Amino acid sequence: MSTSFHPDRNYKNNAMMMDFYEMTMANAYFLTGQKDTRVLYDMFFRRVPDGGGYAVACGLESLVEYLLNFHFDKEDIDYFASKGIFSPDFLQYLSTYRFKGDIYAMPEGCIAYPNEPMVRVEADAIGATLIETQLLTFMNHQSRIATKASRICRGGRAIMEFGSRRAMGNDAANLGARAAYIAGAVGTANCLADQKYGVPALGTMAHAFVEMFPTEYEAFAAYAKIYPDNCTLLIDTYDVLHSGLPNAIRIQKEILDPLGKRMKGIRLDSGDLAYLSKKVRKRLDAAGMQDCKICVSNGLDEFTMSDLIQQGAPIDSFGIGERLITAASDPVFGGVYKLAAVEENGAMIPRIKVSENEVKTTNPGKKMVWRLYNKDSGFAICDVITMDDEEILEDMPYSCVDPEKPWKNITIENFRAVKILKPVIVNGELVQPLPSLEEIRAFTRHQLENEVWEEEQRLYNPHQHYVNMSHTAYALKMRMRDEYHF
Amino acid sequence: MSTSFHPDRNYKNNAMMMDFYEMTMANAYFLTGQKDTRVLYDMFFRRVPDGGGYAVACGLESLVEYLLNFHFDKEDIDYFASKGIFSPDFLQYLSTYRFKGDIYAMPEGCIAYPNEPMVRVEADAIGATLIETQLLTFMNHQSRIATKASRICRGGRAIMEFGSRRAMGNDAANLGARAAYIAGAVGTANCLADQKYGVPALGTMAHAFVEMFPTEYEAFAAYAKIYPDNCTLLIDTYDVLHSGLPNAIRIQKEILDPLGKRMKGIRLDSGDLAYLSKKVRKRLDAAGMQDCKICVSNGLDEFTMSDLIQQGAPIDSFGIGERLITAASDPVFGGVYKLAAVEENGAMIPRIKVSENEVKTTNPGKKMVWRLYNKDSGFAICDVITMDDEEILEDMPYSCVDPEKPWKNITIENFRAVKILKPVIVNGELVQPLPSLEEIRAFTRHQLENEVWEEEQRLYNPHQHYVNMSHTAYALKMRMRDEYHF
Repeated sequence: MSTSFHPDRNYKNNAMMMDFYEMTMANAYFLTGQKDTRVLYDMFFRRVPDGGGYAVACGLESLVEYLLNFHFDKEDIDYFASKGIFSPDFLQYLSTYRFKGDIYAMPEGCIAYPNEPMVRVEADAIGATLIETQLLTFMNHQSRIATKASRICRGGRAIMEFGSRRAMGNDAANLGARAAYIAGAVGTANCLADQKYGVPALGTMAHAFVEMFPTEYEAFAAYAKIYPDNCTLLIDTYDVLHSGLPNAIRIQKEILDPLGKRMKGIRLDSGDLAYLSKKVRKRLDAAGMQDCKICVSNGLDEFTMSDLIQQGAPIDSFGIGERLITAASDPVFGGVYKLAAVEENGAMIPRIKVSENEVKTTNPGKKMVWRLYNKDSGFAICDVITMDDEEILEDMPYSCVDPEKPWKNITIENFRAVKILKPVIVNGELVQPLPSLEEIRAFTRHQLENEVWEEEQRLYNPHQHYVNMSHTAYALKMRMRDEYHF
Repeated sequence: MSTSFHPDRNYKNNAMMMDFYEMTMANAYFLTGQKDTRVLYDMFFRRVPDGGGYAVACGLESLVEYLLNFHFDKEDIDYFASKGIFSPDFLQYLSTYRFKGDIYAMPEGCIAYPNEPMVRVEADAIGATLIETQLLTFMNHQSRIATKASRICRGGRAIMEFGSRRAMGNDAANLGARAAYIAGAVGTANCLADQKYGVPALGTMAHAFVEMFPTEYEAFAAYAKIYPDNCTLLIDTYDVLHSGLPNAIRIQKEILDPLGKRMKGIRLDSGDLAYLSKKVRKRLDAAGMQDCKICVSNGLDEFTMSDLIQQGAPIDSFGIGERLITAASDPVFGGVYKLAAVEENGAMIPRIKVSENEVKTTNPGKKMVWRLYNKDSGFAICDVITMDDEEILEDMPYSCVDPEKPWKNITIENFRAVKILKPVIVNGELVQPLPSLEEIRAFTRHQLENEVWEEEQRLYNPHQHYVNMSHTAYALKMRMRDEYHF
């Protein structure tokens, strides 16, 4: 078994990252003779945050690393024993427990839609129960940030992830930077995300740097001499148009020109960025600095960016901080983990959770997710949830059901059909090495450029991708819903 | 030197948790002869999130742990060397660098207000620069969650932190649970937060548990037999009033009564919680189960809770998930880290960052924060920012300035004055052991019950606490602002 993880000198076993109820339930399964009962859970989400048209599935690498290393140390067992409510036999069993289940999942970076399984777990009842929280935390957090970053990167300008200081802790900062990079950001401010995950770290100076020198010019000059090849100056410490910009132009003439170097850029971190960027661009151009880039930051997100771009602001790159790394406009990715089948006499018998709220009724049984692409354009027509043992044949029209409008007759023709849940871990073993960060990033980009309709990528009121069901899967759901409905 | 940290078997050096620009600046300070220049930074915030009246300072234990262990390993130095832009002499210097500065800070759990330093860092330019991001991430994240949790806990009902699965990664979950506990939550769902930080973990069952048994009654019965002393049943898997509740009442009569045990509670996780809790309470009471608690969860926050309580919903405890752990309604705690003074010829010379936006102009110089309490009631009258070497004498009227309304004559009488920035680390050494989690929690509670006016604790439009300045500190700011204003 081989993996492609970045070596992590601080590897941490996260088996204890579980909700307490997972232990009370697992202990009860053990005591009621269900410990080897095979069960199947689906992880899926119901709504794309921000009213968006698609999500970017992210977090699988973290999940795999966790599952392959899943175990309890002596102090973990001692911790549980101290609670005085768990069976000693169960704790003994846990002390050598390893995850031996199967994980099918969308590859990391895959475009994902509501209500279709993103991760499918088939395992013994104990294992499937104990991994719930950590699976959800990884997938929810990282998918949330990747999805947000994908929206922010839509404008076509270079996006830098700058939010570590406002992140919800270090994992949020580092894994968030990785998720943003997967979804299209060009880099991060955070060194640890670079060292640990390979997300390129970039950055030049803060206002304090300018204040550390007697004058702004002296600060700029010191910087330009030390970093002549990477000279981006922050020009808004005192006054952009009367001090920062003239000083930057002087630096080009007096320091960089004699060295045969070009200033890489200037950065604005306050003020009206449309107004200032236009003024600055004009004066830089007039000074012969057409190649000097304008970078901006300051509480931006996809909405402000979109407005700035529409107003013709000549901004080359955006540093996006708190509103990306916390997904501030809508921070929750509501992924859930629901039981879909339980083994009885060797067969996986579907389970359903019904709800007054129709959209919360789960899809029962062991299922597969397919994506159907137009054979000519290559763009995705729809997704289809089938039972796992169904096939979709490409050479004949395919009839399926829109579960929200089941009266519609839907027939798909001229398509290529691909199963998008792939085997990742089988019997506790990694099936093949995970892709590298660059491969994941290229995969996401490829889908957004070649497979996902522009109409689904709008910021406002995007087209909602069709997630259909096979007649078999839909009929099973309807039958079971009726059985359980009081 | 001794500390009171919970032993952490996965201790992680977070020195690499820095923005890249901190290294470019530090390298430049080294090369321009400023490496030993002493500088002073203030960490403060400008706005209480959610329009609240106060914040709860949190994150200091993480910060101290980080600073006491601050160092770079060989692979960190190699990482920086690989960038090809840092001086080898500087990297050599860093390889043995330790943090030797002074940290003054509000104790963890302290009530904090806008614009006053929460943490004050005085150190050599290199150290003060390199710790910016990690200091802010710890303080911003944990203060944000503690502040949110404090609002949520205002209703007087028991609050459980249930949000790990929707948290922005594991640190967000664990340190978030700790912050919520400090601010008044009674526990968390998360075992790791219990094992690592001592936050009591609690929980019973998910819907899947009920689905694992042939009938709801059999699931409840199995649970009650295994956990007769801790029996809280989730009664909304199929139908609360027609199935879950009658089954729970049967469990009391048929399983628990014969054992001489009482059902601890029932939990509702869907539906209209006001309507259902009233119905459930009535029927439980009628069945002689007046002592059976009603616990609810499902996308709650302080706003919905406040409404439910106002409607007379007989809910004993609330499980609060995603909207607490992500502070979803306003997720960013905008703490900043600003240069306030730089050593020149042995004296700390104030620095200011001016801004078109008056509230963004920093308070220059080395400062202290005082809290003035009414000598009779014990409640806090106002805070005062003074220069560090000023005294506030309690036995005479004290005149100070409201920086937002400087024309007002403010004189405080009959007060007790306490410096609320305390020495935490001096010359790189911890001054005294940090308080335990329970001590921090009791401290927060004590302040909210005995020192912070109810008027500041309202959810909507609370009274804004006065953060005044001494005449000296205000005059310095005005003089420096005028000097720098173009």
